[in-house]
Amino acid sequence: MSAPTRSRLAPDERRDQLLELGVSLLADRPLEALTIDLLAEQGGISRGLLYHYFGSKQAFHLAVVRRAADDLIARTAPPAHGDPLERLHTGTVAYVDYVLASYDGYVSLVRGAAGGNAELREIYEEVRAALSDRIFDEDPDGLLVTDTPAHRLLVRGWTAMVEELVLAWAADERAGRARLTRAELDGLVVGALPALLAAAP
Amino acid sequence: MSAPTRSRLAPDERRDQLLELGVSLLADRPLEALTIDLLAEQGGISRGLLYHYFGSKQAFHLAVVRRAADDLIARTAPPAHGDPLERLHTGTVAYVDYVLASYDGYVSLVRGAAGGNAELREIYEEVRAALSDRIFDEDPDGLLVTDTPAHRLLVRGWTAMVEELVLAWAADERAGRARLTRAELDGLVVGALPALLAAAP
Repeated sequence: MSAPTRSRLAPDERRDQLLELGVSLLADRPLEALTIDLLAEQGGISRGLLYHYFGSKQAFHLAVVRRAADDLIARTAPPAHGDPLERLHTGTVAYVDYVLASYDGYVSLVRGAAGGNAELREIYEEVRAALSDRIFDEDPDGLLVTDTPAHRLLVRGWTAMVEELVLAWAADERAGRARLTRAELDGLVVGALPALLAAAP
Repeated sequence: MSAPTRSRLAPDERRDQLLELGVSLLADRPLEALTIDLLAEQGGISRGLLYHYFGSKQAFHLAVVRRAADDLIARTAPPAHGDPLERLHTGTVAYVDYVLASYDGYVSLVRGAAGGNAELREIYEEVRAALSDRIFDEDPDGLLVTDTPAHRLLVRGWTAMVEELVLAWAADERAGRARLTRAELDGLVVGALPALLAAAP
């Protein structure tokens, strides 16, 4: 006889709940620390249940990273209307918020992607592309940026720069030696893009 | 009886020659492709000789990467005198030259470092720090950049951006779909730094 189920959720809802738990646990630990033991402890999830929904721990990990990536893209969407620079500011600050709130998980995605895990790399590249492409897609009239090959390359470089600045600032901040305030960091990352575009040929 | 040695080199010279061979082979292949078989084929080097000088294949790999990193830092030194922007241009273009000439080896360093190899990571961080610090060290009078926490962070972000731009351009160029010329790429990476600094508070 099986024990009573913890709650009467439809399978899709249950799967969803497992993913949400994974995403929230991933925020402050690397992917490899998302063990079955931890999931059991935090959510009363058994290996059997996890395998039932995802097939393997690795597949669960990938599904969690994909969900986190989708969250990141959704949460950093700029407002639909308004001043182009204001919209860039809002979307970029939301990105900084997200990375700071999910620092350990984000770092583990970056490392996993760069370190040769092809599936993590694909998700990471998708996020990077989504964040870069959005700058152009959201600005069809070219108010902030016109769509040229040089600008495409610069925006890609800018996203790499923003990531480096945020991760460097966060590492310093965690070590108690950040020399810029969060507002100053936001000012740097947001101000960088118009400056780069203005200097491009 | 042992076979006659290939050449009468002092041990230091022989070790040096092995490292130089490693660096040249690393330019167009990833680190893991630097096998004993390849070294034997290209330089008549036996496993015994390699182990004699380096102790293990892994130690040899690290020594090769360190030598390549030292080469990179030396070759990208800006001229000692001259106009600050000219000096930045010369040093940065030398960096782009180096990465393009050693694309596969450079990518394998970036991936190995990001992927959690602590020793590769240390060498990579040293290179990054050397390239960033040089911008300040070479400019004690603050002609191009004054030494503030915001500028330190921006220069670090700029080095990440330059790396991303060069690797992205190189990947496109190798696939026959680069839409910028090499000169345009150089213009973008060099012009980005003064633009970023001018926009910083």
